[in-house]
Amino acid sequence: MPSIESGALSPPPSPLILTQDELKKIAAYKAVESVQSGMVLGLGTGSTAKHAVDRIAELLHQGKLKNIIGIPTSKKTHQQAVSLGIPLSDLDSHPVVDLAIDGADEVDSNLNLVKGRGGSLLREKMIESACKKFIVIVDESKLVAHVGASGAMPVEVVPFCWKFTQNRLQSLFDYAGMCCEIEKDVGDLKTASDAILRLAGVVEHGMFLDMATTVIVAGELGITIKNK
Amino acid sequence: MPSIESGALSPPPSPLILTQDELKKIAAYKAVESVQSGMVLGLGTGSTAKHAVDRIAELLHQGKLKNIIGIPTSKKTHQQAVSLGIPLSDLDSHPVVDLAIDGADEVDSNLNLVKGRGGSLLREKMIESACKKFIVIVDESKLVAHVGASGAMPVEVVPFCWKFTQNRLQSLFDYAGMCCEIEKDVGDLKTASDAILRLAGVVEHGMFLDMATTVIVAGELGITIKNK
Repeated sequence: MPSIESGALSPPPSPLILTQDELKKIAAYKAVESVQSGMVLGLGTGSTAKHAVDRIAELLHQGKLKNIIGIPTSKKTHQQAVSLGIPLSDLDSHPVVDLAIDGADEVDSNLNLVKGRGGSLLREKMIESACKKFIVIVDESKLVAHVGASGAMPVEVVPFCWKFTQNRLQSLFDYAGMCCEIEKDVGDLKTASDAILRLAGVVEHGMFLDMATTVIVAGELGITIKNK
Repeated sequence: MPSIESGALSPPPSPLILTQDELKKIAAYKAVESVQSGMVLGLGTGSTAKHAVDRIAELLHQGKLKNIIGIPTSKKTHQQAVSLGIPLSDLDSHPVVDLAIDGADEVDSNLNLVKGRGGSLLREKMIESACKKFIVIVDESKLVAHVGASGAMPVEVVPFCWKFTQNRLQSLFDYAGMCCEIEKDVGDLKTASDAILRLAGVVEHGMFLDMATTVIVAGELGITIKNK
């Protein structure tokens, strides 16, 4: 908590303690430095990615970026981008995405991610697995020792008999305390991923393995950039 | 081909050449011999499975079977079963299914199946992977040297940017001539299955691997029963 003593004559300079939102913004702005004119861009979803979309629009309006085509990863981002005047398209028309910028719920030391706690998991995964480059932007609170360490790993299932699918997921990962979510270290992530995807009724899960090419972490001590 | 010599005085008996539908019916009736009172039954979909559902209803009405609970694999089968008075439930209420009986589009020598050319792939897979026993009933035209030999292998995808997903599936199996369908031998089926399921946008595919416990094949020369 910042503590500010009031001075007698002039207000003292506030100590440089950044809020989580300011850290997110710093990471987002840093990522947008990689955007070049003419790119097809995957536009992420969430409180961190929102800053990146804002910044891209700002640079477009300043004329510093031109001919950008955005592929929004959710309806919410679609609305944001439309309101900011960013030209949009979709994967059917633009199946190759030059760069995507998005946040994540968790990032492990191998740049594997958990995403989707805020929804829009499936679109994000489709678009971000179609990217040449995928920059993930997070504040340092998102760094974890292993996937699932900070909370649930979302699994998207079809509505038909979803409770049944939930129970099958649960028995699949009983050893990891999973309950339509993974809460402990599940061991080899690719094996866990395949096991989840093999369950009929599962559409997608929130592990994004081997997808991020760069992770930008904004922390109190500055920005850290990790490349794959 | 059975050949029957006709006599001089009485009208000749028609030669015993069974239609494809009669073969399907023979396989279906044979499968229903495995049904016992008190079972939770997966009720299949399609022209062959329809005969099995009819037969189960017949035995219920004759009092030869009692306390059957059916889990229909499609809306069509649901309607058929309701019209025949078979008591129904779902996987949420009955997550353990004693026996499922269903047809298939293809059966290979290892009892791997292709299903779903008539739709209802996902429900069938959910229910039939929850079975203690899964009897597949086919006429001999469904036997193939390898999965995909007789036509397309269906893949169910989410509507969002489905053309994009189709193109990714195509490039995944370029070597096998796949076009949202597998038309040649794709090699190791489990590897192909995992590769398809890993594509974001894919919900399920029509390969039913290691699921059938018995296949009943009705052919001109009689019934063949293959057990796993």
